[in-house]
Amino acid sequence: MKNKVLLSKSITSLILLILTNTGALFAQSATDISHEYALKAMLAAKEKAEKLDVLVNIAVVDAGANLKAFIRMDDSFLGSIDVAIKKAKTSRYFDINTGDLGRLTQPGGIIYNIELSNDGLMTFPGGVPIKNKEGKIIGAIGVSGGTIDQDHEIATVGSNAIIE
Amino acid sequence: MKNKVLLSKSITSLILLILTNTGALFAQSATDISHEYALKAMLAAKEKAEKLDVLVNIAVVDAGANLKAFIRMDDSFLGSIDVAIKKAKTSRYFDINTGDLGRLTQPGGIIYNIELSNDGLMTFPGGVPIKNKEGKIIGAIGVSGGTIDQDHEIATVGSNAIIE
Amino acid sequence: MKNKVLLSKSITSLILLILTNTGALFAQSATDISHEYALKAMLAAKEKAEKLDVLVNIAVVDAGANLKAFIRMDDSFLGSIDVAIKKAKTSRYFDINTGDLGRLTQPGGIIYNIELSNDGLMTFPGGVPIKNKEGKIIGAIGVSGGTIDQDHEIATVGSNAIIE
Amino acid sequence: MKNKVLLSKSITSLILLILTNTGALFAQSATDISHEYALKAMLAAKEKAEKLDVLVNIAVVDAGANLKAFIRMDDSFLGSIDVAIKKAKTSRYFDINTGDLGRLTQPGGIIYNIELSNDGLMTFPGGVPIKNKEGKIIGAIGVSGGTIDQDHEIATVGSNAIIE
Repeated sequence: MKNKVLLSKSITSLILLILTNTGALFAQSATDISHEYALKAMLAAKEKAEKLDVLVNIAVVDAGANLKAFIRMDDSFLGSIDVAIKKAKTSRYFDINTGDLGRLTQPGGIIYNIELSNDGLMTFPGGVPIKNKEGKIIGAIGVSGGTIDQDHEIATVGSNAIIE
Repeated sequence: MKNKVLLSKSITSLILLILTNTGALFAQSATDISHEYALKAMLAAKEKAEKLDVLVNIAVVDAGANLKAFIRMDDSFLGSIDVAIKKAKTSRYFDINTGDLGRLTQPGGIIYNIELSNDGLMTFPGGVPIKNKEGKIIGAIGVSGGTIDQDHEIATVGSNAIIE
Repeated sequence: MKNKVLLSKSITSLILLILTNTGALFAQSATDISHEYALKAMLAAKEKAEKLDVLVNIAVVDAGANLKAFIRMDDSFLGSIDVAIKKAKTSRYFDINTGDLGRLTQPGGIIYNIELSNDGLMTFPGGVPIKNKEGKIIGAIGVSGGTIDQDHEIATVGSNAIIE
Repeated sequence: MKNKVLLSKSITSLILLILTNTGALFAQSATDISHEYALKAMLAAKEKAEKLDVLVNIAVVDAGANLKAFIRMDDSFLGSIDVAIKKAKTSRYFDINTGDLGRLTQPGGIIYNIELSNDGLMTFPGGVPIKNKEGKIIGAIGVSGGTIDQDHEIATVGSNAIIE
C-alpha cells in the first residue's frame, strides 16, 4: 500500500515535470484556460494534497465557469465532489477566493445568503481564481476534502502552477 | 476601446431620449409594465451603470414576476445573471426593496431564512419595485455586479425612468 | 391601441437604424457577442415579430451560453420565457439550429432523448446560432411564441442582424 | 498551432506510457476504480480522440457512479459536459453500454422513457462500463462530442486501457 502510494506520487511528479518543462511553449496569455493547463493545475494540486496526506476532490472550471477538469482522490469524501465543483464555479462567478466571499455573506453581511443563487454557492475557503501571466482570470480551481486551510492551500498551488 | 465605450454610451443615451420623448404617449397607468417600458427602465439603468463605470446585469420582471427584459453588460460577473433576476423577482414577490427585506431575514429576524422559498430569494440591496404614476407596483428591477449601494442606485434610476 | 403599436414599431426601427449605422464601428470579429450586438439582434428579431404580428419571447446567449439579453413582448405566452431561453442555450450548446437537432432526437434517432441533458433542451425550430463575419459562432438567439416556422424566421432575422 | 497540438499529443502519449508501464503494479482486481486508473482511462480516451481529430468531453465514474475524473477538450461542445457525465453514470447505473440501453427505451420498448429517472439518463452510444481483469465492473466512462460511433469508439479505448 505504502509502495503504491509512493509510486502514485512519483508518477504525478513525473507528469508535472513534463508538463512544466513544456508549458512554456503554450500560450500563457490566452483568455480561457486550455485543457492542458487545466490538467496541469489539477495535477499540481493533487501532488500537493498527496504531500499533505489529505484526500480531496479537485475541480477546474474555464472562463465560462464550465467544468474543464476533475479528479476525485480514492477514499475522499463523497460529498466533496459537488463541493469542489461549486467552489470552483463560485470563484469564477465572482472572480474571488471563496473564503473572501464568505466574509461578506455572514449574518449581517452585505450579501447575506447570496449562497442561494446560482444553484448554490460555496463561500468558505477552497476556491481560487486561475490567472494568466497578465493577471487576467481565465478559470478557477476548487478543492474539497481537507480542512478549509488545507483546501485553500492546495487550490492555491494548483492556481499558481499555471503562471510558474 | 475608449471610443467604443463612448459610442456605446451615446447610443444608449439616444435610445433613451427617443423612448423618453415618446413615453408620454404610452399609458403610464397600466397595471402591468409594457415591454417598451421594461426596455426603457433597463436602458436607463444601463446608462447609469456606464456613468458610474460599473459592470452589471440588469433584469426587469412584470407584475406577474415573470422575466420581461434583461441585459448582461460585457465582462460583468457571471454569477450576477442569476442574482439580478432573483433580486427583481424577490422585489416583486413581496413588493419591497430587497435591502429592506434583508433586515427582516437575519438570524432572530421575523422571517429568518425566507430566502429558501421561491427557488431562492436575494435579500440585499439591488432589487426595486417599479410603479406607475398612480403608485401601483407594475413590476420590478434587479441589478447585480457593483457594490450593494451602486446596485441599489442603478436599480432606482431604472425604476424612476418609468414615471419621469 | 393601433397607434401605440405603430409608434412602438417606429421606435424599434429607429433604434435599429442607429445601431446598424454605428455597428460597423464595433469589432464584428470578436469571439463573444457584445451586449450592444445582443441588443441589436434582439431588437431586429422583435421588429420582425411585430411585422409578422406575432407575440414572442426573445433570448440571446453569449459564447458561454449565458443569458445576455432578453425581452418578452406584451401578451406573449408565459410558458415561452423558458422555452426561448432554452432554445438559445440549446443552439449554443451544440452549435446548431434547434430544428436540425430535433431531427436526430426523434424515436429511433441517433441521439433520442438527449433533451433530458443540460436541464432540458428544446429541439424544435426557433434557436439559431449567431456568427461573426468570419463565421465563428459567438452566441445564439432563441425565439418562442409563434409557430415553429415563425419562431425560426424571427430568430434568423435576429442572427443575421449581426453580420449585415 | 500545429506544433502545439503535436506537442500536446506527445505529452499525453508520454503520460500514458508512464502509466501503462507502472500500471501492472496496481491491483487490477480492485472492485472500485482508483483515481490513477480513472486518469489512465481518461487520457487514453483523450489520445484516441486526438488521433481521430474529434473534440470531446470525457467523464469517468467509479463503482458508486460518482464522478471520478473528467476533462473537457478545448472547443468541444458546451452541451457535451453534461451528456458525457450522464453517459458514464447511465452506463454504471445499469452496467451496460448506453447504446444497448437505448434499444429498450424507444416507444413501445420494454423500459420506454426510463430516461426520466436518475435526473436524466443518456441512452445512445458513448457510455461504456469499465471492468477489472476478472471482468467485474468497477466504473464507467462516458464520451460526448463526436458522432455516436466515434464517442463509443473513444469510450471503448478508454475502458480497455485499464485491462491492457
